[in-house]
Amino acid sequence: MVRDGIEYFGKMKTPWNGAFHSEKKNMKARVYVMLKNGVLDPQGEAVRHALGSLGFDGVEGVRQGKVIELDLADGTTEATVTEMCEKLLANTVIESYRVEMG
Amino acid sequence: MVRDGIEYFGKMKTPWNGAFHSEKKNMKARVYVMLKNGVLDPQGEAVRHALGSLGFDGVEGVRQGKVIELDLADGTTEATVTEMCEKLLANTVIESYRVEMG
Repeated sequence: MVRDGIEYFGKMKTPWNGAFHSEKKNMKARVYVMLKNGVLDPQGEAVRHALGSLGFDGVEGVRQGKVIELDLADGTTEATVTEMCEKLLANTVIESYRVEMG
Repeated sequence: MVRDGIEYFGKMKTPWNGAFHSEKKNMKARVYVMLKNGVLDPQGEAVRHALGSLGFDGVEGVRQGKVIELDLADGTTEATVTEMCEKLLANTVIESYRVEMG
């Protein structure tokens, strides 16, 4: 494996970035899912209460959501990730989502 | 309340942004909590499997974390939010966190 890396290094035009196997590039996508405004968030409410108990004053509201980090095959489009959100990752009745690529 | 809003509107130099009570400004902080690398993420694994079942190919890895949105009293520092993370929001043994202010 390391030998492959060294051979690859020899062929590279750009300076070595410190990573072997850089030929295996994946796309990353990040999806943020939050409860819509007006939807009760008991988990966030529990966190707010706990912060108060710990002596943190001035915490006026807490809402908790999800981050989902996806390692995707190269060339996956944002449209595909949006489809994943609509079909599985977010419950669009009560949750909103935001997709971040790269 | 609405009358206050209208009076305030009359004094504004920039176009009205649709919000009354904009004098009540809160700080926002966002905390991202992710499982550290090497820590097994069964929830993420379940999502990966489900995406495969739905016909989404090339999903090589999924990790799921939390976003916590905090409405804070004006003047709360990032140090305070970091303290909240250390004491409550993240389990620093298995989770890493990132704080974003504003």
